Amino acid sequence: MNIQTAYFKQKALITGGLGFIGSNLARRLLELGAEVTILDNLDPQTGGNPFNIADIRDQVRLVQADINDEDNMKSVVDGQTHLFNLAGQMSHMGSMQDPFKDLNDNAIGQLKLLEACRKVNPKINIVFAGTRQVYGRPKYLPVDEKHLLTPLDNNGVSKRAGEMYHIVYHHVHEMATCVLRMTNTYGPRMRIKDDRLTFIGWWVRQLLEGDEIQIYGDGSQVRDLNYVDDVVHALLLCASHPTAYGKIYNVGGEPISLLNLARTMIDVYGSGKYAIVPFPENRKRIDIGDYYGDYSLIQSEVGWQPKTSLRAGLQEMFEFYRRNKEHYF
Amino acid sequence: MNIQTAYFKQKALITGGLGFIGSNLARRLLELGAEVTILDNLDPQTGGNPFNIADIRDQVRLVQADINDEDNMKSVVDGQTHLFNLAGQMSHMGSMQDPFKDLNDNAIGQLKLLEACRKVNPKINIVFAGTRQVYGRPKYLPVDEKHLLTPLDNNGVSKRAGEMYHIVYHHVHEMATCVLRMTNTYGPRMRIKDDRLTFIGWWVRQLLEGDEIQIYGDGSQVRDLNYVDDVVHALLLCASHPTAYGKIYNVGGEPISLLNLARTMIDVYGSGKYAIVPFPENRKRIDIGDYYGDYSLIQSEVGWQPKTSLRAGLQEMFEFYRRNKEHYF
Repeated sequence: MNIQTAYFKQKALITGGLGFIGSNLARRLLELGAEVTILDNLDPQTGGNPFNIADIRDQVRLVQADINDEDNMKSVVDGQTHLFNLAGQMSHMGSMQDPFKDLNDNAIGQLKLLEACRKVNPKINIVFAGTRQVYGRPKYLPVDEKHLLTPLDNNGVSKRAGEMYHIVYHHVHEMATCVLRMTNTYGPRMRIKDDRLTFIGWWVRQLLEGDEIQIYGDGSQVRDLNYVDDVVHALLLCASHPTAYGKIYNVGGEPISLLNLARTMIDVYGSGKYAIVPFPENRKRIDIGDYYGDYSLIQSEVGWQPKTSLRAGLQEMFEFYRRNKEHYF
Repeated sequence: MNIQTAYFKQKALITGGLGFIGSNLARRLLELGAEVTILDNLDPQTGGNPFNIADIRDQVRLVQADINDEDNMKSVVDGQTHLFNLAGQMSHMGSMQDPFKDLNDNAIGQLKLLEACRKVNPKINIVFAGTRQVYGRPKYLPVDEKHLLTPLDNNGVSKRAGEMYHIVYHHVHEMATCVLRMTNTYGPRMRIKDDRLTFIGWWVRQLLEGDEIQIYGDGSQVRDLNYVDDVVHALLLCASHPTAYGKIYNVGGEPISLLNLARTMIDVYGSGKYAIVPFPENRKRIDIGDYYGDYSLIQSEVGWQPKTSLRAGLQEMFEFYRRNKEHYF
């Protein structure tokens, strides 16, 4: 699959397109010659930020709508060739505080979007942004796609429901759907104003403000990180690769401990400090322990692998926020 | 765990209690000395049937309500010691025709019920009726609880979401929840008026009417069956056994091909005929192929195993419907 030509003059819809990954994807799709429609509900609790597309605003069509509005969605998906389905409620803590909103956004909304596609545009190619949260606490590492799914929080339940609907719609309705289970993604345009969505965004904020990074636990916890351009590449590969239809793939990267991540971030940024602090009780209960993913399946079937080194990715991210931080605080 | 004493003067709530399994459970709980509340929304698409409790009507409290009504549920769950959570949308075909109702009944409703329990009665013991449908098409037999979950229809998605919420509420809120993944249950008081819920009920109806049983495919498909009294016993064991809290267990039984099942049913009933017919296309797509479950986990941890032979169970069932068929046609 040559993505240099696959998206030329194609009509690509990005749900959650004002968010972190969606806005980076939009930029890349424009470079590849696609006609881009961004759909976003601008929910203040998500990563949606109009500044994320300020420099490409006149090159994309922007629709402010919610995927739960099935009638509206029918008109939006009509005629599109590709759907990058990134809309969703991503906050683990938020899902425990308001489980019904979480379920509404991630399961009902996804079902409505799939029904809209089935009814008016069943040939559309769909990639859904899943999450490694569906695995829960790993029983072995690296975690592959055969690992049991025991989500530890409501968000893992609702995101898993969204995943499953995509696969059912492939099996039953022969639709071209694919699920990418994403791990911690970082890079320009992520929400850094609070710790609602990611700890990485919040750490970036601490560094920019000269505040102390707080590492919960003992710092030995392992995570794998992906630079956003690598995730965008995975989305583009899977949305145009027939082998990917009906499949679920992990994306993943190099494992690193949170302590080493904090040190590397401080080193690349040029200054900063960190502290090891006890886990808050409500976060401890839904923490998954060590995680890193096995991405050999997407590598062998679709030809994806991460390319950006952590230091290079962090460099890009810090440069972006140094220039634009007023739009993200 | 001695269930002869565990339920004496306990307050047991059964959601979906006018249905097949719920009404048999209610009868058993009364024998054990429990105070029984039955909750049912009397949705005509479910197995709820007032006749199922006609002979015990004055011994139980009956609440006609929907589990989605969280405020109402709070008052109903308040003060109960045990919740047998059997309410749900069980039709696979129905879930494809109306996926939103299916999700509403099986995921949103379950979440509302769990929230009601968490808020007013977090110590309640809960057993949730899951389904082997969450496995999808088996990769190996017998299917154990470590088998991957790839549901083939919307009902598998929504029932899996309901399961997961029960386990999350155990992990996060320390509630005593357990999930039983049920397979084909048969016995008195099941819906036999159409093929909406189970093929076994429909076959019983054909026999009673002197019509031909139609077996889809080639008859070699394998299923395992449980007589309802054995399932009731599993529910009673798990709702009062601390080892079961936070666990998911298969219930299962002797595997039998559909052809041999039809022949056995005809033999026990005393007359009847069958035909092998092609699969309707819409059923073929969501059919799971061969299935039988490994129930060694519940056997070793809780001490359950099926006790009723197929012939003995069928005998009981036919006797019941011969006496009462006018209430089920």
